[in-house]
Amino acid sequence: MNTLVETDLTDAQVAPPAVPELVAALQAVLPAHCVLHREEDTRPYECDGLSLYRALPAVVCLPETEAQVQQVMRVCKRLNAPVVPRGAGTGLSGGAMPHSQGVLLGLSKLNRIKRIDADNALAVVEPGVRNLAISEAAAVHGLYYAPDPSSQIACSIGGNVAENSGGVRCMKYGLTVHNILRVRVVTIDGDIVELGSEAPDAPGLDLLAAFIGSEGMLGIVTEITVKLLPKPVCAQVVLASFPSVEAAGNAVTRVIAAGIIPAGLEMMDKQAVHMVEPFVQAGYDMNAQAILLCESDGTPEEVAHEVARMEAVLQDAGATRLQVSTSEAERLRFWAGRKNAFPAAGRVSPDYYCMDGTIPRRHLARVLGAIEQMEDEYGLRCANVFHAGDGNLHPLILFDSNKPDETERADKFGVAILELCVQVGGTVTGEHGVGMEKINQMCVQFSREELDTFLAVKRAFDPSCLLNPQKVIPTLARCAEYGKMHVHGGELRFPDLSRF
Amino acid sequence: MNTLVETDLTDAQVAPPAVPELVAALQAVLPAHCVLHREEDTRPYECDGLSLYRALPAVVCLPETEAQVQQVMRVCKRLNAPVVPRGAGTGLSGGAMPHSQGVLLGLSKLNRIKRIDADNALAVVEPGVRNLAISEAAAVHGLYYAPDPSSQIACSIGGNVAENSGGVRCMKYGLTVHNILRVRVVTIDGDIVELGSEAPDAPGLDLLAAFIGSEGMLGIVTEITVKLLPKPVCAQVVLASFPSVEAAGNAVTRVIAAGIIPAGLEMMDKQAVHMVEPFVQAGYDMNAQAILLCESDGTPEEVAHEVARMEAVLQDAGATRLQVSTSEAERLRFWAGRKNAFPAAGRVSPDYYCMDGTIPRRHLARVLGAIEQMEDEYGLRCANVFHAGDGNLHPLILFDSNKPDETERADKFGVAILELCVQVGGTVTGEHGVGMEKINQMCVQFSREELDTFLAVKRAFDPSCLLNPQKVIPTLARCAEYGKMHVHGGELRFPDLSRF
Repeated sequence: MNTLVETDLTDAQVAPPAVPELVAALQAVLPAHCVLHREEDTRPYECDGLSLYRALPAVVCLPETEAQVQQVMRVCKRLNAPVVPRGAGTGLSGGAMPHSQGVLLGLSKLNRIKRIDADNALAVVEPGVRNLAISEAAAVHGLYYAPDPSSQIACSIGGNVAENSGGVRCMKYGLTVHNILRVRVVTIDGDIVELGSEAPDAPGLDLLAAFIGSEGMLGIVTEITVKLLPKPVCAQVVLASFPSVEAAGNAVTRVIAAGIIPAGLEMMDKQAVHMVEPFVQAGYDMNAQAILLCESDGTPEEVAHEVARMEAVLQDAGATRLQVSTSEAERLRFWAGRKNAFPAAGRVSPDYYCMDGTIPRRHLARVLGAIEQMEDEYGLRCANVFHAGDGNLHPLILFDSNKPDETERADKFGVAILELCVQVGGTVTGEHGVGMEKINQMCVQFSREELDTFLAVKRAFDPSCLLNPQKVIPTLARCAEYGKMHVHGGELRFPDLSRF
Repeated sequence: MNTLVETDLTDAQVAPPAVPELVAALQAVLPAHCVLHREEDTRPYECDGLSLYRALPAVVCLPETEAQVQQVMRVCKRLNAPVVPRGAGTGLSGGAMPHSQGVLLGLSKLNRIKRIDADNALAVVEPGVRNLAISEAAAVHGLYYAPDPSSQIACSIGGNVAENSGGVRCMKYGLTVHNILRVRVVTIDGDIVELGSEAPDAPGLDLLAAFIGSEGMLGIVTEITVKLLPKPVCAQVVLASFPSVEAAGNAVTRVIAAGIIPAGLEMMDKQAVHMVEPFVQAGYDMNAQAILLCESDGTPEEVAHEVARMEAVLQDAGATRLQVSTSEAERLRFWAGRKNAFPAAGRVSPDYYCMDGTIPRRHLARVLGAIEQMEDEYGLRCANVFHAGDGNLHPLILFDSNKPDETERADKFGVAILELCVQVGGTVTGEHGVGMEKINQMCVQFSREELDTFLAVKRAFDPSCLLNPQKVIPTLARCAEYGKMHVHGGELRFPDLSRF
């Protein structure tokens, strides 16, 4: 970790162009101020939010129009230059890490909100628009855009589309893929293709969902139609304490089995509570082994009714303490603990590594038990905060990169957690994508035939593999080198899960 | 129409095998009773629910296990034989019409419900399981499978996956694609690939949505994990009359703009009401120009609250009469009219042609006005029933195939409606797929680059184009022959919409 990746990553059949040739070709089609190639200008683009992986791009393009994006693509196709798209650079899996011999295509200047159609509850926006800016612009109509990644003040909707971003509200309102109606895409040939429509069904192949979360491998998005939802007039959160992680996990199942779909259902273990509470004073129960935050939103009548049902179910599931927010200020205070878990980790540990994996909810307690055993095995602490309703874990591995081999142990600990997620029938991503970070774990997640299917579809869009090469989908050679077989559908092949 | 399609449809580079060779190869890998090749045995498979298009398959295979499906695929791949999968044969766009030189692969014997996991609200089923059988099996746990195509008593979940089927509940609960977690697929090479997972997000490309609705072009589904939902304890429907189609269309928009998501939101025009009411005595207002059925489901408190809001919004939108069902019997009676619209059409007209297109809701009144003008133009009556909340139209064109040229006029009327849907920014399908029926309209719906993208993805799964060939995606030659350009995103290029 903390490695500067400056090696040549390309595995294309044809060599990429010389940098001066590439720069000259791009300068011929873009305004001068949209092409950056001196090191002092390109350095800020060397990594995204996962700063472990860095590379200096050969050139940075910052187009201002769709037509300019088409021109960049045609140049790259002609010269065989790799293209790595980038939104706001807040990604956590290295998906926007540049290619040292290619173009870093920044989309931040495509940042117009083109249309808000309140009657049909949709907005048409460019990819560089910030997630939160959409809700801000729609607020006058009483509408908002639901998916709320923690970085929503900074991250762009184009990046959300690339990573299929989630957030706290996603249990009730869905991931990015459930909130996008249509994308307009520039292909590697410079053609325009539209996927999806404002209508609920589309004929032919539904490639919209395949595009969302494709991490820049299929094309460059230049326009996005997002769904807007009526902003709930009221919200309350129930804060519940449990005597064990298992009891809290079972309570999550009980809430869902009761037919309640909370607007947020988050769990924190004792380690996370003890890390956060002294920092934020959110009012969390320091004696609980785990806490749940369970939110209801809607009309005041709906919320009152749903909160009463939530309380009954949580009580019945063995909650030792229940508090319901009585004001908007209290609701925000209850949430402040959860939302400040990452800064709180930074306060108690020199470094932390935020993992992102997903498991079937029924295995919550078992997986948390296994992570606790791993803390001993790797000699590092791990605090657990997660989107419990979705089974999306965010273990925070605490380490000190200045201590010998702690970084390496943290890395191995993280890998062990991700592979455990696969073993219990889950996945190596929740909402942060695969990017650079988890490409080896894809060898564990998928069979060769499945990876071949991904690669075949990737090549259907991008036969020369110029779009974000060497990310997301591992080659057979990489999997052979990594030396792991895939573990499928909860079958325990390798490594042995029976020890947990 | 009523054409028997017995011509050779293949456009593969390599000729399909001779029939005796194909039959012998299949008999070598399947039990004798699973291979039908005499005309009296294959004749029942000559068409699906769209009986306009028929072809006798070279051979019918009815495998009983996934391993047998794999064997069939390997034989077809080796011999270059086309494969057309078939579920219950209830499809309405000819997607399961056989290929005269290929295999009709019936999946009705793969009909086991493998597992119902009530805690996690999901079921694992084989493709031949009937849609309604899933809900029947889940009822003991208080759960059900939401999408409810009209044919749900007969149609299979495998066919629902192939067509991305909808139904009345889909506005609130989504189409098939929103209710499937995972599919297990046999590829044309006989390999097994799993798409999706029980976890909410999947790494790599989301090919599950692309597979759902792919109409048998990408692979053969052998196992499906469906989401189950808690069965609502209570439901009520509001029946509202309007003085014009426009007023009813605006009421639909108002309901949705108020943040209400009905469990069903259906519209019928006067023609449809007058066709249905004498037959069913549902209690519909014969003086209304259009009626709406607006359903609420949930707990009794939620329903009471939502129905009151629906009534207020509908009243405010100009409803001239409002009735709320006061018992389950009355609710079912209100629905009986809508659900018997097709038989009612059969009662007043020798033949009828049910169209299926989708439009942005804001164009409801305009499109219905245009259809009314078309009635004069084509000299045929058309009754309109539709999933108003989804903008999914089902115009019923009434005609008499025994009268000279009425069949041809009905066909042209249907094409004009579908192309109008595209012109206002909608699509040529809602929930019935493209199949044989709408392949020409795909030329109008999509640009050449978009169709090329579909074909490239199709070839990524099936390079020899053996899976359901010559359906869904038109070739460039076909579009040239059809002689229409695509009309995109509501732009009026051809034909001229300004006359409406």
